[in-house]
Amino acid sequence: MPHPNDPSLRSFIPVDPASDFPIQNLPYGVFSTKAAPAPRVGVAIGDHVLDLAVLEGEGLIDLAPAFDVFAQGSLNAFMALGPKVWSRTRARISELLRHDNPQLRDNKILRASALMPMADTRLHLPIAVAGYTDFYSSKEHATNVGVMFRGKDNALQPNWLHMPIAYNGRASTVVVSGTKVRRPRGQLKPPSAEVPSFGPCKRLDFELEMGVVVGQSSVMGEMLTEKQAEAMIFGFVMLNDWSARDIQQWEYVPLGPFQAKAFATSISPWIVTREALEPFRVQGPVQDPAPLPYLRQTEPNNYDLQLDVALRAAQMNEAANICRTNFRYMYWSSVQQLVHHASSGCAMNVGDLLGSGTISGPDKHQRGSLLEISWNGTEPVELAGGVKRTFLEDGDSLSFHGWCQGDGYRVGFGEVEGTIAPAV
Amino acid sequence: MPHPNDPSLRSFIPVDPASDFPIQNLPYGVFSTKAAPAPRVGVAIGDHVLDLAVLEGEGLIDLAPAFDVFAQGSLNAFMALGPKVWSRTRARISELLRHDNPQLRDNKILRASALMPMADTRLHLPIAVAGYTDFYSSKEHATNVGVMFRGKDNALQPNWLHMPIAYNGRASTVVVSGTKVRRPRGQLKPPSAEVPSFGPCKRLDFELEMGVVVGQSSVMGEMLTEKQAEAMIFGFVMLNDWSARDIQQWEYVPLGPFQAKAFATSISPWIVTREALEPFRVQGPVQDPAPLPYLRQTEPNNYDLQLDVALRAAQMNEAANICRTNFRYMYWSSVQQLVHHASSGCAMNVGDLLGSGTISGPDKHQRGSLLEISWNGTEPVELAGGVKRTFLEDGDSLSFHGWCQGDGYRVGFGEVEGTIAPAV
Repeated sequence: MPHPNDPSLRSFIPVDPASDFPIQNLPYGVFSTKAAPAPRVGVAIGDHVLDLAVLEGEGLIDLAPAFDVFAQGSLNAFMALGPKVWSRTRARISELLRHDNPQLRDNKILRASALMPMADTRLHLPIAVAGYTDFYSSKEHATNVGVMFRGKDNALQPNWLHMPIAYNGRASTVVVSGTKVRRPRGQLKPPSAEVPSFGPCKRLDFELEMGVVVGQSSVMGEMLTEKQAEAMIFGFVMLNDWSARDIQQWEYVPLGPFQAKAFATSISPWIVTREALEPFRVQGPVQDPAPLPYLRQTEPNNYDLQLDVALRAAQMNEAANICRTNFRYMYWSSVQQLVHHASSGCAMNVGDLLGSGTISGPDKHQRGSLLEISWNGTEPVELAGGVKRTFLEDGDSLSFHGWCQGDGYRVGFGEVEGTIAPAV
Repeated sequence: MPHPNDPSLRSFIPVDPASDFPIQNLPYGVFSTKAAPAPRVGVAIGDHVLDLAVLEGEGLIDLAPAFDVFAQGSLNAFMALGPKVWSRTRARISELLRHDNPQLRDNKILRASALMPMADTRLHLPIAVAGYTDFYSSKEHATNVGVMFRGKDNALQPNWLHMPIAYNGRASTVVVSGTKVRRPRGQLKPPSAEVPSFGPCKRLDFELEMGVVVGQSSVMGEMLTEKQAEAMIFGFVMLNDWSARDIQQWEYVPLGPFQAKAFATSISPWIVTREALEPFRVQGPVQDPAPLPYLRQTEPNNYDLQLDVALRAAQMNEAANICRTNFRYMYWSSVQQLVHHASSGCAMNVGDLLGSGTISGPDKHQRGSLLEISWNGTEPVELAGGVKRTFLEDGDSLSFHGWCQGDGYRVGFGEVEGTIAPAV
């Protein structure tokens, strides 16, 4: 049997070469339909969704001794079964979708119940988020922010090159793409004000990130090796770490961001598996100084994954691209992040979500936040028809697209979108 | 029917006046026994545990339309039922335990199945922790730390008097009293070292805190009023926010503590309800400047709650008291903390745990951490028989006791204890 990543595979569902979801991808999500409103697990194939709960119910996917794993509103139960089951299941789904396999292709009744146009589905948050952690692992982003706030000579903090810096975020407000994002209120104290006031954020921003979905738990008190950490990663999503820059500026010393990042974090609905990204692994940037032994890598753990950010103001007909960058630029890899996260003995759980940190690149058009794009509000970006932005305004719609380009096909992430609703 | 807080109430189980658990308390916990190892919900009464799953099963406590609420390994399902049910249930338990009520008292078979000596039980983590947030709300603690690290003139950060500063902690490592705490490893870079190294923490500390158990959820995007926040508080536990000072010092700029606080947080097994603490409400310190309107309080939201910290090194026969302070000193109340937490629109969940921040008082013996007690390691504290400490050593056992003193009875929290195990 060919490997599910084999570029020559074709599905019996026709898939456009520009689609994010060919048979080489098979990302997992949670969906519902009007006819069947209970959320359940599916896989994206072209512009369709394959209902895994139906396939499991029909005995076409066997997860015994576990059962009803896909008839659930999150992927957590499936993830808990571990990497061997993830791999076996993906191979089985690939087999069922192949153009030369009649089992599902020629069973009209089964096709009608198991395959539906994605346009007819509603996509839900794919995981029950156990913990949400946000890293800060792009050297370009950390440098840009550092130059803005501390000047060129002290841009990177002394610890930055030695460990993947991170903070614990708020899991309760992780939402799926398409959820409106309400402009937060908070304490604001511009440098010119004597005392803080409370009101709507005036410097609302996005952060372009990828998110690691942790699919296995670790033992409290024990560290992880590179291999162990890698095996625990179920897959990746795109992640928008919405940020209230003015709230953050006033609150973050000395304990870090709190309400500035607590109001919403959006993720894409489809989790692209680590296995599907294997062909796109690349070496990350050279790490100098060499990381301490517990953080050393023996393998390339970065991915060649293109990322686009588009912004559409309410008065615009079409979105304008404001950033095009690549996940490969990240200084600290997701594996290093996970190893560091557990290094104190911190237990990791099924459903943990790790934000990569804002993904900026070396060029100006590769900046992954408006803070950087508008250089702290001093250089407004021109969108179209005279519309300019320093930070986000009410009604703005922000969307990320991400994909790995194969030879004649893409392994993509779809979209993560959020539109700004006015403060209450 | 008398109110369950009535000081004149007596239970048919004899309770020592020095006990933490008279009929005026009735704290909730999760326990199991050798004979029945499935964790379930109970209430502490004197030196006994009352099995609420048995009472619910027998129809003596009616939570309809909910059922099997107490035959569970956490209090989350019960908490989700809301403050009216909490209050009604507590009144019913009080009624069943009263010395003049024969219903349970004289039913030998029921007593044998529903009441057991606490010494024969194992106490578990009482809640499934949804999110863990740690505040920093004692002015004395923040000032002590500030003086140590920044000098007297800049002790308090400019934001401190305007909002309850906090960071998101790690929910996955909240453990119940009695769980061994493994000394964490991490990156250390003493000021004298050129580069960091990785190894066991050398400056391991405790932090004396109270924890708020949030029993209701809030709506994402919406703020809370003082009244709403108060009504969401199910109860309180004692909380030890174990801290690796050397790891923290190197990692915390600019995003706050991460691995330094991620390895363990211990809580006491019994949740004392907010209702049981009502008689001990007191006015907190004067807040000057006056808080912004969203943080203003119309009621006294502090509690007169005495707290003791005892440290016993492996070679000591008896623990030595190293701190005696009071929860009433907290500058920001738990209600203000919760209001601030939701102020950006951050959704709160059933099972959220909010650490108060280290509780120090104005006097030297009221310092709630070894960092303060030993003044950053410069003034070792004498325990007994020549044993001194700056920070915690392997084998040290640390325990908190806390209680509100009524007239002839106590509403207490029992103990939260942790013993340091060596690093792996």
